[in-house]
Amino acid sequence: MSEHQHADAAETADEPTSEKLVELAKRRGYFFQSSGAYGGVGGFYTFGPQGAALKGNVEDAWRDRFAVAEGNMEIDAPTIMPEPVFEASGHLDGFDDMLVECPECGESHRADHVVEDNTEYEDAESLAIPAVEEVIAEHQLVCPSCGAGLAGQAVEAFNLMFATSIGPGDSQPGYLRPETAQGIFVEFPRLKEYARNQLPFGVTQIGRAYRNEISPRRSIIRTREFTQAELEYFVDPEEDEPDLTKVEDVEVTLYPASEQNKEEGEEIRTTIGEAVEEGIITSPWVAYFLGVAKPWYDAVGVDMDRFRFRQHLSGERAHYAADCWDAEALIDGSEESQDSEQRKSAKPSSGYWIEMAGFAYRSDYDLSKHAEHSGDRFTVFKQYDEPKTVERATVDPDMSYLGPEFGGAAQDVVEKLETLAGRDREAFEGDTVEIELEGETHELPLEKTGFAVEEQTEAGEHIVPHVVEPSFGVDRLVYTVLHHAYREDEVDGGERTYLGLDPEIAPTVVGVFPLQSDDELEAQAEEIATALREAGLSVTYDDSGNIGRRYRRQDEVGTPFCVTVDYETIEDEETTVTVRERDTTDQKRLPVDGLAETLAEIREGDLEFEEL
Amino acid sequence: MSEHQHADAAETADEPTSEKLVELAKRRGYFFQSSGAYGGVGGFYTFGPQGAALKGNVEDAWRDRFAVAEGNMEIDAPTIMPEPVFEASGHLDGFDDMLVECPECGESHRADHVVEDNTEYEDAESLAIPAVEEVIAEHQLVCPSCGAGLAGQAVEAFNLMFATSIGPGDSQPGYLRPETAQGIFVEFPRLKEYARNQLPFGVTQIGRAYRNEISPRRSIIRTREFTQAELEYFVDPEEDEPDLTKVEDVEVTLYPASEQNKEEGEEIRTTIGEAVEEGIITSPWVAYFLGVAKPWYDAVGVDMDRFRFRQHLSGERAHYAADCWDAEALIDGSEESQDSEQRKSAKPSSGYWIEMAGFAYRSDYDLSKHAEHSGDRFTVFKQYDEPKTVERATVDPDMSYLGPEFGGAAQDVVEKLETLAGRDREAFEGDTVEIELEGETHELPLEKTGFAVEEQTEAGEHIVPHVVEPSFGVDRLVYTVLHHAYREDEVDGGERTYLGLDPEIAPTVVGVFPLQSDDELEAQAEEIATALREAGLSVTYDDSGNIGRRYRRQDEVGTPFCVTVDYETIEDEETTVTVRERDTTDQKRLPVDGLAETLAEIREGDLEFEEL
Repeated sequence: MSEHQHADAAETADEPTSEKLVELAKRRGYFFQSSGAYGGVGGFYTFGPQGAALKGNVEDAWRDRFAVAEGNMEIDAPTIMPEPVFEASGHLDGFDDMLVECPECGESHRADHVVEDNTEYEDAESLAIPAVEEVIAEHQLVCPSCGAGLAGQAVEAFNLMFATSIGPGDSQPGYLRPETAQGIFVEFPRLKEYARNQLPFGVTQIGRAYRNEISPRRSIIRTREFTQAELEYFVDPEEDEPDLTKVEDVEVTLYPASEQNKEEGEEIRTTIGEAVEEGIITSPWVAYFLGVAKPWYDAVGVDMDRFRFRQHLSGERAHYAADCWDAEALIDGSEESQDSEQRKSAKPSSGYWIEMAGFAYRSDYDLSKHAEHSGDRFTVFKQYDEPKTVERATVDPDMSYLGPEFGGAAQDVVEKLETLAGRDREAFEGDTVEIELEGETHELPLEKTGFAVEEQTEAGEHIVPHVVEPSFGVDRLVYTVLHHAYREDEVDGGERTYLGLDPEIAPTVVGVFPLQSDDELEAQAEEIATALREAGLSVTYDDSGNIGRRYRRQDEVGTPFCVTVDYETIEDEETTVTVRERDTTDQKRLPVDGLAETLAEIREGDLEFEEL
Repeated sequence: MSEHQHADAAETADEPTSEKLVELAKRRGYFFQSSGAYGGVGGFYTFGPQGAALKGNVEDAWRDRFAVAEGNMEIDAPTIMPEPVFEASGHLDGFDDMLVECPECGESHRADHVVEDNTEYEDAESLAIPAVEEVIAEHQLVCPSCGAGLAGQAVEAFNLMFATSIGPGDSQPGYLRPETAQGIFVEFPRLKEYARNQLPFGVTQIGRAYRNEISPRRSIIRTREFTQAELEYFVDPEEDEPDLTKVEDVEVTLYPASEQNKEEGEEIRTTIGEAVEEGIITSPWVAYFLGVAKPWYDAVGVDMDRFRFRQHLSGERAHYAADCWDAEALIDGSEESQDSEQRKSAKPSSGYWIEMAGFAYRSDYDLSKHAEHSGDRFTVFKQYDEPKTVERATVDPDMSYLGPEFGGAAQDVVEKLETLAGRDREAFEGDTVEIELEGETHELPLEKTGFAVEEQTEAGEHIVPHVVEPSFGVDRLVYTVLHHAYREDEVDGGERTYLGLDPEIAPTVVGVFPLQSDDELEAQAEEIATALREAGLSVTYDDSGNIGRRYRRQDEVGTPFCVTVDYETIEDEETTVTVRERDTTDQKRLPVDGLAETLAEIREGDLEFEEL
């Protein structure tokens, strides 16, 4: 009953999977470069019908796990945000890549990549601009496009945000957000109210983010417009602890900084619980989310033999980030399309590792910055178990003395006294109090300051929460799922390409075919397709070409099941159809009655095709 | 068992629902102006946890109906597109609003609105700029902000697209798409392949679109960044017909152009079938999609007593659009926040009609424009039933004659002859052929043109499909659903506000409360909340404040059910909880066992609370 000879996930030697995948993706409606009719623009891709459905399935699965199941709130903020937001976040000043322009051909390149690709420097991004210029001159580096010398060319900081202008006339600058996170941080004062001022709580967002990359590359892996799924989890750093019992037994492959720094560093296979105990993962919160993420990646179809968590090296980490790990997937690729990321690989191989997510402990950095720049309150009021009595020093200066004495500067004196009382109570222990005013020291009689120490009862304090951030790249995950599902084998003596996508994530679940061009068969097949659609399954109806070609087409799409309507279907008393499974190409004769329910059950993961 | 006195959907006289709704939306996490910590920016709103969930539910419902159930393809294209796309689409030149700036206060206003609000002109948008300037001068119109005279101020065309710049150095202009549609049109050459070159087929997209409005207003009704759900349905204008039997009995309220043009025009209640028969709706395709849309709007919670389809007046319609209808909802509002849209209302009332969707027959306009500008093929090859034999006139000019005779212009002569042969065969009937070249007439001997008429067999022809476009605004629909669900009544002698959202669309389905602060109750309640979440229900856990306040909170959120865990729950042999229904405030004691399934069934619309 099977047309299938043998399945083999191995790659043919001639061409890397990534190149064959990009062709398949275009041919079968997964993704392709946008605006092709106008020559296309680098870094912009359109997800076709299959790609959009797969991406939607991945987003739904993320939402189920990281928002719904964890009890976090999801929001949906605009992609355009005003300039002050990015002044505060640091993106306006610091979100730059180093740009060098070729004096001959005018092509722009990332200067750090030119350095990394042609010298022994491994992390040129962390060098200062003059240092990069020096390395380029010293090594006589040349333009990767035309070979002209780059020595002496200025290296410039190029801000990666897309800028625009909001409103007419009195317009104000706006930027397309470089990460969805800022849309959460900036609304913290309101979001904490929705959380009823209780820590910990989490806020998620799935949406577009934008980076005006100097050299977008490798199809949907580094684009200028992409989709992120981010969780900002706000915790009380002193009291909140994750429930590690939920994830302590999760087995993970870790590649800690310490191993990366060794000559022959190795990945470590361990559990989340042990990794925390041994101090490999320093933040228990980061460990918790790594433990949640690993089985989730497995479930959406990432091959766990090509998956690891890699710790950021101290140079990669932002200064405020206590610990940061990336989820990485191993992808093959041609020499040409590789870049510096590959060098972070533990083992030399024909593939390279790509970052799919980052898990960072960001401390109070983001909220503090927005508090500082906006003047708004980015804090949560934390109630003490019991009210505390505290002593508070206050001043109540005698203005009838200060006025004549200091004139216009009297108010400055009051402020100096208030600050001094809060900071240094001992300064008020003598008969006079010394203050500095514009470089000069003044002595004030103590009694004119109205200094007093009062007892106050405080119910709690305002604290700035710390942030734990699991940040997922959706496009890169979609790419990885497709790449890891790519298979070639032989069927009926011919070569076959198929995507071994899980029915739970596959964009199309069923292909429905009339066996041949015949009104009666077509009517019956269309009726079945409609019934399956109404049961919530994603269906493709196909009546063009011979049946073998239609199977191959759905194999390439990764459709797990094909239903064929033949003359038995319309002649027999009980209406039956042939159902063919993609990976094995096994076929079974099944009644139409109940078919939708059966396939829906398989899709939910509650039933296997072999059990039928 | 009920705390409920009487339900009343009537509005309190003091404040319009729209204002109370905006307050509720902010308080309960539906939507609020973004970046409030920095003072906010007009026209940008963030959907809070409830709003994002409701919006997601609406999008899913749209996808189920307009993509999945109709067998259309959904794609996901970038929001930034390069300039040539908008040169072709006409947005670069024509997507303007009329702007007038106040010479005193510097505020920018829409000049057509200033005219409409202060003169008898009803459709100032259709006037030319000089005419608007004249009206302003003639009527001595003033700045709506400060009262300064606007006469003599220049009215300018302000392009509504947000502009940006793609890439460094050799950067190219890009724009944020003003509609998702262009991301579909521009990819037609590839999309038709996914449809296997067979018409009709449809492509949908749900995503962000952007318009740099001069005066964004009325919360999420007119914003600068919004979400559209669009379907572009490509048909063969000569052969494809919709299956109107599916929708002919759908009852609709129509407000045709003919009635709008009457002094006392009225809405018409009829069916889709009759409206087509009587020629009220001229395009059967538009009629089909109106018939699909009406029950769908009903199902997502739009009040059908405040819903109609309004036909565009000839002045509103684009020149290429054969027929266009809007889906409109009636919304109340204060005088101040109303604008010209209100005047299109059939009956004077305290409310106004807002556009929620447009249904247009766009002919071959979009595809032809992109074909013209890109040079790519935006056609489908249409096979004839039988191959046709056609006569084709060709030329094969004698270059040894043309060369010496015309020199450098010889190639132009060849092209002239080719064009002439295709267009006017009779020109080749004499001994000489006349052509015009740079204003001069030349006569060529017939034999030097190589004119011939050949018989050719053609299997089919390349046709440009026509487009039917149902285009939905998601934000406006979310607004309408909330507005139509807004209710006030009295419970336990106190005023109550609640959102009567259907369980199928409500963002939160269940609130779970421990009756009071008690470790055992809380542990049990949290366990139940987790179980409900795992069953796929959206759950809010709330243990703060007295139980009445928690009910009120969920009433305002529109949560259909609240589950309260009390001492009976933990003491009795069978674990039971109190389940309270929102609208009636009726309470029932139900076992925890099976609760998730029961609530999921109600959510799916397969069960009613009263049946329990």
